[in-house]
Amino acid sequence: MDAHLEVICVGNELLIGKTLNTNAHWLAKRITSLGLNVRRITVVGDDVDEIASAVDEAVQRKPCFIITTGGLGPTFDDKTLSGVAKALQTQLAEDVEALEMLKKRYKRYVEEGRIAKFEMTPARVKMATLPKGGKPLPNPAGTAPGVFAEYQGVNLVMLPGPPEEMEAVFDGSVVPLLRKISGDSTFYEASLDVRAIPESDLAPIIDQVMQDNPYVYTKSHPQVGEKIPRLELHFSTTSKDAAEARQRIGRAIVQMSELIKERGGEVKPMKT
Amino acid sequence: MDAHLEVICVGNELLIGKTLNTNAHWLAKRITSLGLNVRRITVVGDDVDEIASAVDEAVQRKPCFIITTGGLGPTFDDKTLSGVAKALQTQLAEDVEALEMLKKRYKRYVEEGRIAKFEMTPARVKMATLPKGGKPLPNPAGTAPGVFAEYQGVNLVMLPGPPEEMEAVFDGSVVPLLRKISGDSTFYEASLDVRAIPESDLAPIIDQVMQDNPYVYTKSHPQVGEKIPRLELHFSTTSKDAAEARQRIGRAIVQMSELIKERGGEVKPMKT
Repeated sequence: MDAHLEVICVGNELLIGKTLNTNAHWLAKRITSLGLNVRRITVVGDDVDEIASAVDEAVQRKPCFIITTGGLGPTFDDKTLSGVAKALQTQLAEDVEALEMLKKRYKRYVEEGRIAKFEMTPARVKMATLPKGGKPLPNPAGTAPGVFAEYQGVNLVMLPGPPEEMEAVFDGSVVPLLRKISGDSTFYEASLDVRAIPESDLAPIIDQVMQDNPYVYTKSHPQVGEKIPRLELHFSTTSKDAAEARQRIGRAIVQMSELIKERGGEVKPMKT
Repeated sequence: MDAHLEVICVGNELLIGKTLNTNAHWLAKRITSLGLNVRRITVVGDDVDEIASAVDEAVQRKPCFIITTGGLGPTFDDKTLSGVAKALQTQLAEDVEALEMLKKRYKRYVEEGRIAKFEMTPARVKMATLPKGGKPLPNPAGTAPGVFAEYQGVNLVMLPGPPEEMEAVFDGSVVPLLRKISGDSTFYEASLDVRAIPESDLAPIIDQVMQDNPYVYTKSHPQVGEKIPRLELHFSTTSKDAAEARQRIGRAIVQMSELIKERGGEVKPMKT
């Protein structure tokens, strides 16, 4: 099954270049390694309408999952749940389960001496105010719970922005859901380090190898600034069968290496 | 003027989590420092329809500029210009100026001994085959030229994917165009290192400071995993007048610091 996902990252800090989007990178790698495809990553700012548009457009493309990061915290600029509620044409409502998660977490913070006392302030209630029908997902690494929702056959998961929290909620609550879709599929990859042949001379060779190895995706990544042309050739495939995946990639690499050597290039395996 | 831009990054390597999207980060920072706003960043794979959809949707939102990265090279998977041509409802055609740029570049490579000889192969002609009406932009750091096009009042710039090439074409050919739009606007920012007050207790303070300082955007970035609550408070503004910008941010920081101390928090300036 070619199940695809979309990732939507929310945060002005990403649009002003303050923060490098390591969340998108981490999620893309993790989702790919589960044998699923990320089809699009969208970054929008802390704006209800921008978030709502991005979610609405993604829903129309009918991915199996939409995963958002960021914007779940207690401050005014945490607007993801308002944006999602707008896209899902529903309201926000306090969620009893989410409130319980928050109370437990803050009580622990008091016990640990991290904060002096705990009151359920409006800013804290905000983190437990979810799009109606949404379910909170435990956040083992912070306060704001993640959120799961379903809309028009699309699963939506809202993850917090701080990387440790995003990763903890993803691994704890989202991976089990994704495994149900991917079955036993896994992603396999390998790379060749190619020298002394320019990318433009490699192009027809890649075409041939791609044609002869239809399940292997091959992409060249030129290394700029080297005196002698040098590039990484990356091979990848997704399969439920590890032996078959390795054979596929092995066949493509053998054919590619022979063709490169025939054209006077140098080639050796590369760690990915 | 609230001139906004969109960035579209093309490349399967970004969607499988092989490559961290430092291009988007670099562009966002650079564009912001020119006093302009990036409203959305979209990442799509090496697929003509995906690229065309992303470009078409961006054009409909009427940014002043759409900047794409990646997919300009000689190999089969370099599909950005096909995707853009499709979105712009035009054809691809060999461009004389782009062909000249390529010939000059490859002749230099032969002179430098980087490649043995030069022929104008189909793979090389591909890099000079632009959407009709497009203009090539010199690439001082590599072979594939950038491309400039206009469509429905929107300026489009296609940049190569390798970071050195992307940066060189942007700085050489795009910055002068963006300066015409931004005038003398510049982006200013400063941060406070705040401790011993949880983000949820800070929320109402930030609300108040934002209300009293309407031109300063304030955002809190919690640091996870610290024993005592700790976060970065980031202040930013855009202005044509440096003194005014500094005053705006200074006022917001003074007010914020006083309010934090009143609530028992600790605060000091932070290098950004």
